[in-house]
Amino acid sequence: MTKHFADRLIEAIKKKGNPICVGLDPRLDKIPAYIVRKALDQKDKSPTTMAVDAILEFNKGIIDAVCDLVPAVKPQIAFYEIYGHNGIWCYEQTLKYAKSKGLLTIADVKRNDIGSTAEAYAQAYLGEVSMFGGENEVITPIFDADSLTVNPYLGWDGVKPFVEECKRYGKGIFVLVKTSNKSSGDLQDLEMKDGKTVYEVLGHLVDSWGANETGKSGYSFVGAVVGATYPSQAKLLRKIMPNTIFLVPGYGAQGGTAEDVKVCFNKDGLGAIVNNSRGIIFAYEKMGMPDVSYCEAARAAVLEMKKDLE
Amino acid sequence: MTKHFADRLIEAIKKKGNPICVGLDPRLDKIPAYIVRKALDQKDKSPTTMAVDAILEFNKGIIDAVCDLVPAVKPQIAFYEIYGHNGIWCYEQTLKYAKSKGLLTIADVKRNDIGSTAEAYAQAYLGEVSMFGGENEVITPIFDADSLTVNPYLGWDGVKPFVEECKRYGKGIFVLVKTSNKSSGDLQDLEMKDGKTVYEVLGHLVDSWGANETGKSGYSFVGAVVGATYPSQAKLLRKIMPNTIFLVPGYGAQGGTAEDVKVCFNKDGLGAIVNNSRGIIFAYEKMGMPDVSYCEAARAAVLEMKKDLE
Repeated sequence: MTKHFADRLIEAIKKKGNPICVGLDPRLDKIPAYIVRKALDQKDKSPTTMAVDAILEFNKGIIDAVCDLVPAVKPQIAFYEIYGHNGIWCYEQTLKYAKSKGLLTIADVKRNDIGSTAEAYAQAYLGEVSMFGGENEVITPIFDADSLTVNPYLGWDGVKPFVEECKRYGKGIFVLVKTSNKSSGDLQDLEMKDGKTVYEVLGHLVDSWGANETGKSGYSFVGAVVGATYPSQAKLLRKIMPNTIFLVPGYGAQGGTAEDVKVCFNKDGLGAIVNNSRGIIFAYEKMGMPDVSYCEAARAAVLEMKKDLE
Repeated sequence: MTKHFADRLIEAIKKKGNPICVGLDPRLDKIPAYIVRKALDQKDKSPTTMAVDAILEFNKGIIDAVCDLVPAVKPQIAFYEIYGHNGIWCYEQTLKYAKSKGLLTIADVKRNDIGSTAEAYAQAYLGEVSMFGGENEVITPIFDADSLTVNPYLGWDGVKPFVEECKRYGKGIFVLVKTSNKSSGDLQDLEMKDGKTVYEVLGHLVDSWGANETGKSGYSFVGAVVGATYPSQAKLLRKIMPNTIFLVPGYGAQGGTAEDVKVCFNKDGLGAIVNNSRGIIFAYEKMGMPDVSYCEAARAAVLEMKKDLE
């Protein structure tokens, strides 16, 4: 039987000694020039093929540089989808490479839909896909991520198909609860009749959706996205969802500090994984290092973040 | 200058004489056997390549059958994404073929994110993507859909980048407001202090987001998704958003009737586009016709739906 996702994640966090997730959000204009130049030298290829070749080489460099240090990576699919089907090929390859290096993968796709539609997403990202049936049947994984982010606007109908694949394949989800952006309050902070906000209601829902899905670690495979940029809300949500692992965006470039992030953890020092994208993968820029040193810079940035979180 | 999306859509609805959108949600196990068999005959191809070859042929058949009858098609990306990068290639080809046949396209992707991430989605689906910069610069459209569906859980930050691409390229969006599924109320029906529900608040937000974006038709390029399965809520939303085009799912297979759909329209008989997926593309099953007649059946189903809506 496949091991419970929360147990796998908690184990990896303990093993690596930190709860850092590296966000693989590549941007072609920030990728070292020598990598882009090499990709452009392949004259017979289409522009999007050259673009994703450069991105994949860049990603592999980052993965090699951080795989012994951190428990997980989180590629944001928009930065791949922008190159169409070639970008999705690159996304698949990135997940595969990260996995081969012992990293847990969080597919940041924020997918959401209902019934058979959500089922299709769940099979694609977490489970397996069956094709043709009968004597021609082929069953194969497609993205095979360890976990993915889910948008809850459609309610339980839109979450259940993901939960079912998680159960079957030892995978996990992180449901958006309180996001890190400036206008996240437009909807999430609306106040109900009973004084509760939408994000609190969501917190209670996520807690209940995951209540029967805890592993040996005591944590559920139904996680939550809670932004580092809203520490007082995160503190409240930590109480509402004691057995939920928080995926915490917003540290670093978006303004969240180690102090802000603290409230996302339980007293056992566990229960959250903190993402950092730009601050690690493009650390060479901030550190004023030459772009050929982007891997070294990423490694240094991870170690610095580790120290900061301690 | 590119023409305003709402004007293009209203014009197409008037020209075709109906507000029907055909949902291109292919399922391999429902595609006529002769098409799947042909795809499987290409022994040197990978399973997902054969799968999407079958889907693309199926889609082209449907598009050919309905393109003179309806104004728009809406491919649901989950049913393509399930085949990974090959599925996304098929999605691109489907959009392209529909466009070449004079149909407006609604990319049903329910994307949502913030800042530069939402920008990447917006460029990919609605606008153009710039690669490499300087003397190597390549600017190209990727999906080039006429419009797409957007999930609003992250607030204005997550909608604005799409609105900007719409302005620039004459495209449109449909923001989820009240979805057609059973548990859509988990979040959307929560009641605020002032008695308003979340979907009503969203309705007012969508109305304000699109207020300055109306075309000559009087309608805005910021549309809304409002399910046919909740007619009383739809009636209220119609009042809250007089200048918003409703994309209405839930007719047919999900239980919405022509009577239910009526309230989504304004007094001018315009302001909504009604989607039907399974009821049209797999009509051959329901009509008890042989699968080789799936195109004929789809055509008959469209004409029947047209009559029902009248």
